[in-house]
Amino acid sequence: MPSVPPTVPTPCVVWLTGLSAAGKTSIAESLRDTLQARGLHCYLLDGDLVRCGLSRDLGYTDEDRQEHIRRVGEIARLFLDAGLIVLVALISPFRAERNAVRSLFDEGQFIEVFVSTPLAICEKRDPKGLYRRARAGQVPLFTGIDSPYEMPEQPEVVLPAHEIGIDDCVAKLVDFLQRRHNIPLRDAP
Amino acid sequence: MPSVPPTVPTPCVVWLTGLSAAGKTSIAESLRDTLQARGLHCYLLDGDLVRCGLSRDLGYTDEDRQEHIRRVGEIARLFLDAGLIVLVALISPFRAERNAVRSLFDEGQFIEVFVSTPLAICEKRDPKGLYRRARAGQVPLFTGIDSPYEMPEQPEVVLPAHEIGIDDCVAKLVDFLQRRHNIPLRDAP
Repeated sequence: MPSVPPTVPTPCVVWLTGLSAAGKTSIAESLRDTLQARGLHCYLLDGDLVRCGLSRDLGYTDEDRQEHIRRVGEIARLFLDAGLIVLVALISPFRAERNAVRSLFDEGQFIEVFVSTPLAICEKRDPKGLYRRARAGQVPLFTGIDSPYEMPEQPEVVLPAHEIGIDDCVAKLVDFLQRRHNIPLRDAP
Repeated sequence: MPSVPPTVPTPCVVWLTGLSAAGKTSIAESLRDTLQARGLHCYLLDGDLVRCGLSRDLGYTDEDRQEHIRRVGEIARLFLDAGLIVLVALISPFRAERNAVRSLFDEGQFIEVFVSTPLAICEKRDPKGLYRRARAGQVPLFTGIDSPYEMPEQPEVVLPAHEIGIDDCVAKLVDFLQRRHNIPLRDAP
């Protein structure tokens, strides 16, 4: 009998977009741990880390946010080229910039994940007090308050993180990756 | 008898600097193949690839070259954070910018490798005809012709690639990495 060829995971970018406090980073961190347990080399490209380093010359105007998103997309491409699965958790509020990033990749490599927690709930959570400060006019151009968030039109995955828990969000992503990107079904021995 | 703990390779950045046509990329490619054969996850951060992507907004003025080098350094830091060994082949002519990149890393993580092939030999090789075009005034600000190359003062490794072959250069680097960074002594099974 011919042996079954091993399934090789295909590199991809899992790009989580959504409002501040929607749950993007919690989901990304949990997904990272799940994928690493299965023996996959993945990297969570942290928007704040990039802000402190590569993008430290940029501010928060529309133009600078667009450039920041472009840079994160280009870095994700390099990581993909190195064979990693890249996770990105970034508000990335503008549709045009997300689509520009998508265009850097081959068909199927870019997975846009909309963490759809609505503004009212994000604002109620407000773990860092940012919404409160934004409402007080202390954080200009804050997404959802005085800067728009443009919802994805055709995201690969929608995660209503206000209705289902983090674990269920991660399970949905893992299921997607298993079907499309050949990731292992079980933890590595 | 207690078992010997496995040696874990420590991530690092191997930064090859030198004139155009000094042999940086050939050495880096051969080193990458050698390290991969030993089962190490490494990535050759190609200056031209970054130029076409992340740095496509930059030109070749001193200021833009400095910014390009800064960005490559920041990307290298992210790759290191992801646990890879990063190889960089970049003319990176200015001492201050190389030192600025070095300062991004912990002691010992940044390995400055000076590929010391002299200008006369690089210019004689001229594989892409760039020196010829630079001498004809068609490539402004070309390093070694009308833009300076500042030699490293205390590089970790010097590779006189005009006197020893690529294989010997790579052997020198592998020897350095074995002593300092715990890379495996033999190919992976």
